[in-house]
Amino acid sequence: MEDYGRFLALLASTLLVGFLSVILSLVWVFHYREGLSWDGSLGEFNWHPVLIITGFVFIQGIAIIVYRLPWTWKCSKLLMKFIHAGLNTIAMILAIVSMVAVFEFHNAKNIPNMYSLHSWIGLAAVIFYSLQLFLGFAVFLLPFAPVHLRVALMPIHVYSGLTIFATVIATALMGITEKLIFALKNPAYSASPPEATLVNCLGILLVIFGSLILWMASRPHWKRPPAENAKILRPIAATPEGTEVESTMTNSNADKSDLRSNTEAARKQNIKFDEAGQRSTM
Amino acid sequence: MEDYGRFLALLASTLLVGFLSVILSLVWVFHYREGLSWDGSLGEFNWHPVLIITGFVFIQGIAIIVYRLPWTWKCSKLLMKFIHAGLNTIAMILAIVSMVAVFEFHNAKNIPNMYSLHSWIGLAAVIFYSLQLFLGFAVFLLPFAPVHLRVALMPIHVYSGLTIFATVIATALMGITEKLIFALKNPAYSASPPEATLVNCLGILLVIFGSLILWMASRPHWKRPPAENAKILRPIAATPEGTEVESTMTNSNADKSDLRSNTEAARKQNIKFDEAGQRSTM
Repeated sequence: MEDYGRFLALLASTLLVGFLSVILSLVWVFHYREGLSWDGSLGEFNWHPVLIITGFVFIQGIAIIVYRLPWTWKCSKLLMKFIHAGLNTIAMILAIVSMVAVFEFHNAKNIPNMYSLHSWIGLAAVIFYSLQLFLGFAVFLLPFAPVHLRVALMPIHVYSGLTIFATVIATALMGITEKLIFALKNPAYSASPPEATLVNCLGILLVIFGSLILWMASRPHWKRPPAENAKILRPIAATPEGTEVESTMTNSNADKSDLRSNTEAARKQNIKFDEAGQRSTM
Repeated sequence: MEDYGRFLALLASTLLVGFLSVILSLVWVFHYREGLSWDGSLGEFNWHPVLIITGFVFIQGIAIIVYRLPWTWKCSKLLMKFIHAGLNTIAMILAIVSMVAVFEFHNAKNIPNMYSLHSWIGLAAVIFYSLQLFLGFAVFLLPFAPVHLRVALMPIHVYSGLTIFATVIATALMGITEKLIFALKNPAYSASPPEATLVNCLGILLVIFGSLILWMASRPHWKRPPAENAKILRPIAATPEGTEVESTMTNSNADKSDLRSNTEAARKQNIKFDEAGQRSTM
């Protein structure tokens, strides 16, 4: 791997920032707020920030870059797809549980649901995330989708994955803003009490975590290298190998240039495959 | 251009969503709020959302995709760099004026400055944006930077440009959340009065606008095609042409594969140039 040391340093920083975010969310709810419970009280609401930051931000972030960890490159692509899908499934379950906590808290206290921009965009993010997970499972994990469909959908899968991830972080920042305004009364948020400073720092950490994940996920030279059989390119053709051919297709940007003729049609085709490959985290 | 019709449809949608966002911000401040003035009153504060949405979101978004407009491809790269830098300079000036409006309003009303997460991340975004503009000007517009520096910095320029843009939209969403909670009292935000619904829709439009810009900016086949002289590749060498050579370097991903030998070193070099080229909006 090119720049192995730099990759490891960035990964360590990302994990540190991610863990620190989870810890700060726990310090927030246990030291400054009502702790955690499941009884319709503020303790139930507090599951919302903790589970969103743990699942929908941290675990989703790791799921995005899991293909880029060099020590997983000896594992089969199919195993890595299961890990990618599994982490995303855990993140989705935690996000849904965290939403249930808010709805139950609101209903117990007669607070309206779904009135804020935070709730609108948050619900949309969960819906699109579920759709992304379902389509990813159906197209890239199950062996039924034809190769040309996988090639066509991979850039959309990568783009929508990264866009949903960024939207989730933006939604978390709105949630922090809401909660600090509502919860801090005496002293108010505008008086900058220690809780406000701590949670503002948590928000900054979420932005740094998101930026690090997006950097690592978008460096083409940190991609999982093509499988050995990538040298024999079989474009736009269904084969019994299913998922493994897809992995070949989307990873072979470096090798296939040796094999293809340099006609204009081939050049355009290459750009298409490059897009599927270079931006792929799968 | 490949998919010319789809590009035009997306561009039209992006412009429509962007214009609609600016119009909704004006409807918000003129129909529901105190209009616009410059006297330390709420009318001065109202310049903040209007100028941020017009300049820091809409104009910045257009600046990001300006290289991708096919009818500009006959213009020189240098002219397009001036337009890119000019639009970003306008966006920065509007962002700074909009911040001055908030500080003056806060000072006139004895409201503390810089206590919220919105203000922390917003100020950081303006500082990083100014730095990005200054470095972009020094490295890519002025003819002094050596080619290898441009090649090395281009992926960072593109990544940080898109990340700052996404952060600006996230900050705008936090600002909308703050303002609706503070301004709506009777009926409150939670009672979903028409103003809340309108401004929530404005927030959704900002997310859609940002998503469309990021999609258009990250499709490699919609890049400005390489200049004719790209066929003669002169890597890692200072030349008197300055900026034009950079444009050659960062746009030649399709053509240079015909010219380079397929040694391992050349392959790695290609990936580096591809990164500079494929992700470039310059």
